[in-house]
Amino acid sequence: MSVPTTPTTTRAAVLHGPDDLRIEEVPLRTLGPDEVLVEIDAVGICGSDMHYFAGGRNGQNVLRQPTVLGHEASGVVTAVGPGADVEAGTPVAIEPAVGCGSCQTCRSGRYNLCPHGTCLGSPPTHGVLAGHVVVPARAVHPLPDGVPLELGSLIEPLAVAVWAVRRAEVAFGHRVLITGAGPIGILVAQVARAAGAAEVIVTDVNDARLAQARKLGATAVVNTAAQDLELTGMDRLLECSAHPAALWQGLRTLKPAARATVVGQAAPAVDGLPLAHLQRWEIDLVTAFRYAHAFPTALALAADGRVDLSSILTGRFPLDRATDALRAPVTDPTHLKVVVRPHGTAA
Amino acid sequence: MSVPTTPTTTRAAVLHGPDDLRIEEVPLRTLGPDEVLVEIDAVGICGSDMHYFAGGRNGQNVLRQPTVLGHEASGVVTAVGPGADVEAGTPVAIEPAVGCGSCQTCRSGRYNLCPHGTCLGSPPTHGVLAGHVVVPARAVHPLPDGVPLELGSLIEPLAVAVWAVRRAEVAFGHRVLITGAGPIGILVAQVARAAGAAEVIVTDVNDARLAQARKLGATAVVNTAAQDLELTGMDRLLECSAHPAALWQGLRTLKPAARATVVGQAAPAVDGLPLAHLQRWEIDLVTAFRYAHAFPTALALAADGRVDLSSILTGRFPLDRATDALRAPVTDPTHLKVVVRPHGTAA
Amino acid sequence: MSVPTTPTTTRAAVLHGPDDLRIEEVPLRTLGPDEVLVEIDAVGICGSDMHYFAGGRNGQNVLRQPTVLGHEASGVVTAVGPGADVEAGTPVAIEPAVGCGSCQTCRSGRYNLCPHGTCLGSPPTHGVLAGHVVVPARAVHPLPDGVPLELGSLIEPLAVAVWAVRRAEVAFGHRVLITGAGPIGILVAQVARAAGAAEVIVTDVNDARLAQARKLGATAVVNTAAQDLELTGMDRLLECSAHPAALWQGLRTLKPAARATVVGQAAPAVDGLPLAHLQRWEIDLVTAFRYAHAFPTALALAADGRVDLSSILTGRFPLDRATDALRAPVTDPTHLKVVVRPHGTAA
Amino acid sequence: MSVPTTPTTTRAAVLHGPDDLRIEEVPLRTLGPDEVLVEIDAVGICGSDMHYFAGGRNGQNVLRQPTVLGHEASGVVTAVGPGADVEAGTPVAIEPAVGCGSCQTCRSGRYNLCPHGTCLGSPPTHGVLAGHVVVPARAVHPLPDGVPLELGSLIEPLAVAVWAVRRAEVAFGHRVLITGAGPIGILVAQVARAAGAAEVIVTDVNDARLAQARKLGATAVVNTAAQDLELTGMDRLLECSAHPAALWQGLRTLKPAARATVVGQAAPAVDGLPLAHLQRWEIDLVTAFRYAHAFPTALALAADGRVDLSSILTGRFPLDRATDALRAPVTDPTHLKVVVRPHGTAA
Repeated sequence: MSVPTTPTTTRAAVLHGPDDLRIEEVPLRTLGPDEVLVEIDAVGICGSDMHYFAGGRNGQNVLRQPTVLGHEASGVVTAVGPGADVEAGTPVAIEPAVGCGSCQTCRSGRYNLCPHGTCLGSPPTHGVLAGHVVVPARAVHPLPDGVPLELGSLIEPLAVAVWAVRRAEVAFGHRVLITGAGPIGILVAQVARAAGAAEVIVTDVNDARLAQARKLGATAVVNTAAQDLELTGMDRLLECSAHPAALWQGLRTLKPAARATVVGQAAPAVDGLPLAHLQRWEIDLVTAFRYAHAFPTALALAADGRVDLSSILTGRFPLDRATDALRAPVTDPTHLKVVVRPHGTAA
Repeated sequence: MSVPTTPTTTRAAVLHGPDDLRIEEVPLRTLGPDEVLVEIDAVGICGSDMHYFAGGRNGQNVLRQPTVLGHEASGVVTAVGPGADVEAGTPVAIEPAVGCGSCQTCRSGRYNLCPHGTCLGSPPTHGVLAGHVVVPARAVHPLPDGVPLELGSLIEPLAVAVWAVRRAEVAFGHRVLITGAGPIGILVAQVARAAGAAEVIVTDVNDARLAQARKLGATAVVNTAAQDLELTGMDRLLECSAHPAALWQGLRTLKPAARATVVGQAAPAVDGLPLAHLQRWEIDLVTAFRYAHAFPTALALAADGRVDLSSILTGRFPLDRATDALRAPVTDPTHLKVVVRPHGTAA
Repeated sequence: MSVPTTPTTTRAAVLHGPDDLRIEEVPLRTLGPDEVLVEIDAVGICGSDMHYFAGGRNGQNVLRQPTVLGHEASGVVTAVGPGADVEAGTPVAIEPAVGCGSCQTCRSGRYNLCPHGTCLGSPPTHGVLAGHVVVPARAVHPLPDGVPLELGSLIEPLAVAVWAVRRAEVAFGHRVLITGAGPIGILVAQVARAAGAAEVIVTDVNDARLAQARKLGATAVVNTAAQDLELTGMDRLLECSAHPAALWQGLRTLKPAARATVVGQAAPAVDGLPLAHLQRWEIDLVTAFRYAHAFPTALALAADGRVDLSSILTGRFPLDRATDALRAPVTDPTHLKVVVRPHGTAA
Repeated sequence: MSVPTTPTTTRAAVLHGPDDLRIEEVPLRTLGPDEVLVEIDAVGICGSDMHYFAGGRNGQNVLRQPTVLGHEASGVVTAVGPGADVEAGTPVAIEPAVGCGSCQTCRSGRYNLCPHGTCLGSPPTHGVLAGHVVVPARAVHPLPDGVPLELGSLIEPLAVAVWAVRRAEVAFGHRVLITGAGPIGILVAQVARAAGAAEVIVTDVNDARLAQARKLGATAVVNTAAQDLELTGMDRLLECSAHPAALWQGLRTLKPAARATVVGQAAPAVDGLPLAHLQRWEIDLVTAFRYAHAFPTALALAADGRVDLSSILTGRFPLDRATDALRAPVTDPTHLKVVVRPHGTAA
């Protein structure tokens, strides 16, 4: 599995502008101290990748120069720089944003909020949708037995869900509402259940997605396009749909002193915040951004089967068809997660 | 101080409609088990009283029948019902909302959020702007040495500030921003300082109020009508102005993983929530509603002088001039807190 | 199931002294306000019952007058006093200690620590090892579908485990060590797993008990009589064996900033506390006493099968053989939990 | 203040064995990246220094080779290595233990518990009782206005007190008991008060120390050699005497759900832990070890006068008399903190 000579270039999916993704040979930097080379096995496609591809931006971040996309990857370490404490041959998941490590925010344990940090695949930082990448050794997490190499690419979104559930302070016995049955919503449902939630109710407007949610973590589902959400007394809300209406609706189901967590990507300015309602019942409104210290838990949940990743993976594409991969979830909304496999063996 | 026979009526300030407050003789119910009769010494006028007086409503609560106003009171216990564990002659502050005591919310310690609770002076529940009131024994808190009877009426707003600082999780060493230099903002400033805040910065648009804040707790003040608020790296925001613009402005000063607490009365629907900003930095948005378990701390802070209540009390009115008391803070914005003294000795 | 006339006496197992348990007809008080009559179905035997039976005392509490034993019971409500919000015919689990409800400790949410509280079956308060009992309505918890009436008697020890895991602050992803594979240790193992623990390692000196633990919640077991406990890096310790040696040994496995929780009954004075070790690594040492607000979670865990109660129930005795029930776990250490069934249908 | 050429040696107080401290010229290493050279102004003498001097060991750590003592120092940065973000001429306090910065413990924010860490002045790591030292830039904290250079040496013990109060979770309104009126006890008293404690009661067996405590933070003092400690209902205990008897005694004063924190240096094995008492009332027993993220708060408390450091400083010695400094607190127990001033100007 290890390579005798380190490659100096690699094939990668480079985004040049909206709807303009090109497969190109790009240079690969020499391994520095504490760095490793990873041969990529699979790269998950995320909503943010789709935003960059469709519009050249994601939230406040704008594509200004050609950038390799992708931040959800698994692969095998094939070369190891000086000082890096990983063995060549190790299958790993890649954590794309690890903070500067030395600012006050990093030192306090919240490296996901590092003001100096970068994230692989967030322009202008190149991502992992490539044959090989060079990353810091502390960004790779060895896959335990029980997590196949390909599914290692889903550890990143699972880490999102783990962190969301931590930020939500889901405790066991809780009644949890999750709005949005996309891949993150469904992972959050499974993780909330693993964290001890007594009830996990998932809402969406798409019956096919809700059927998947019902199989994967949800104890009940509600199609809010078809019926009113008449819940009361919920302990926790995790908003995973990115729709303010779902957030406002979800807040109404919560009991006094409950906690709502925005997981889906938030808009810069949102109208209609029911602040008097939040105040009358002291309902806390918090958010989740990426993850900190969440990969080990994500790996453990995947390894022992408490989270089912294989049912989430609904499509595979070769690197040459990366554009199709970016369009697949739009074309077919029953897709949960599609992956690109740079070295083939795609279905 | 105690009365040989319990009165069956008392003079009270009854609100009949907007701008229609009448001083009337109203019936006083017989003392039941665990109840006490309090001869009122002083009653503070709060913004909510002024809202009821001006418009017949406060937030979602509407005046539908004549109601005695007032919820900030001190007085002396003059008669004691069976089972009540207080002695006649005890000077007390009255806690106007104590919860039902038996629901799950009360039993979990958050009685301020009791769905079954009532609050003295919130229509249709009669308040304390009267010569005497009958209240449950657990609603009265004996005044310690160091808290004069008249200032006991300011323990209620001080409890609001104590609870706000608790909800805000102000810890010592924190840099704290308080928006709004009204009576609650100034009490919050003093309490935040007593809770160990290293810096307490207060903003307002009125220089006279800011000058008072500077004397009472604030380590610095900013007139946001005159200059931009260019702070960064704040740990905590306590919004006490009830203006969304101040909230949005304050949120921008916070550091990653900070916490903002809405103390001022919130509107039902607020536009412009900078949700993406909150999410990028995982800034928590919480609220404070009344108080739970806060009177003992408020009394201790007032008793040993860490909070200066006498500087907050800026006007006194007899019961007959209760209407003037309700108008005074509007007429003269340098008023912080005015009190009505039903039994005279007003300035 | 309901009775036309309320019984005035009931058969009960009365402890008169060490080794002197008598089945007697005892008076049953008239239903007061907010009280209910429960026809007992099953009563679990606990270590504390066995201590009273063997030695006339449990910890600091000494039997000084004949007392009905028992505090783990299920049954059916057969009569309802004025104001009690339960219907006759409801199958319930009984919570034996609910606090006075009005002291500061109760009002802060920790009613398990109420200094004024009593507990059914703790002398001199009579217990539930009887045909019928009268209890406050708030002490009965309706059994959900999925919890058979007989297993309702195991909700009380399950609530002990739920509270222990809450006090331990087990969070998901945690590596958890549980010392002691008795009924509480095994319930704690299942609950810790339901709360998201990634690993649950159980120790004991008895292989049969460890085999049961392995089937019920433990991801690994260690017989500490046969091999050294060479774990490191554990996040949580829950000590359920009541042996200080197990506590000291367990503390050595914990990582920095970890938390150890003493669940097993503690001795008044314990020698050999490794305080310098706790300090060097800031390992917190906390304890669990009974439970507060834990029955609803226990019922939910039992109802949906995340905790397997039926495998814990290893023996049934009629009331006439209550003495045998109290001796059974000593005679046969593979017993996890035996119950007494006052109205028969015992195996 | 800055030096034209960097010194290659410095005079230092080197401990060779019990009672054998020698003033010697020792080599000073060349400044590496991110390192600074500090010209020492003052070095506080700590109990641990006295233990090393008296017995050649402190707790489990044994002196095995000649080591420069001292870990409480202030000074002026006189040279700056590449990349270090401090200016020459900056007056600073030195934080002697900053962790490896990359292990999981450091990354979670608890660098005081870093298993790979070293601490200046803990053998075999050389300390700061010297004319100059070379330290990492992140170990120096600029002194704000209001903290004189000499008193900067007391920031380290003040940081101990800050961390102790954080670990103790002292919240405002709390009634706090502090056992032991040595320098740490008195600093803890002042910090607890600054953190909002309503009452701060300090115990000791020495009236002179108690008189000092009464002037510095304590609201009341008790000489436990002269009278029984009859307190009840305390919220927090901070044990600063290093005597188990004081800890056991203090635990008895706490209310249900209270928290006790061991600050004084703990012994490896302590007998008589009242575990049943802790369990009956769910009193948590935690510890404090050094500090994490505490210097900024310590500096702020000293700068604005909420903590009075100058009253703590009771003696000054030149480097040649370092041995006398180490003996002074033993000879005269009214000494709180003595400092050594390597460059003279000692009293």
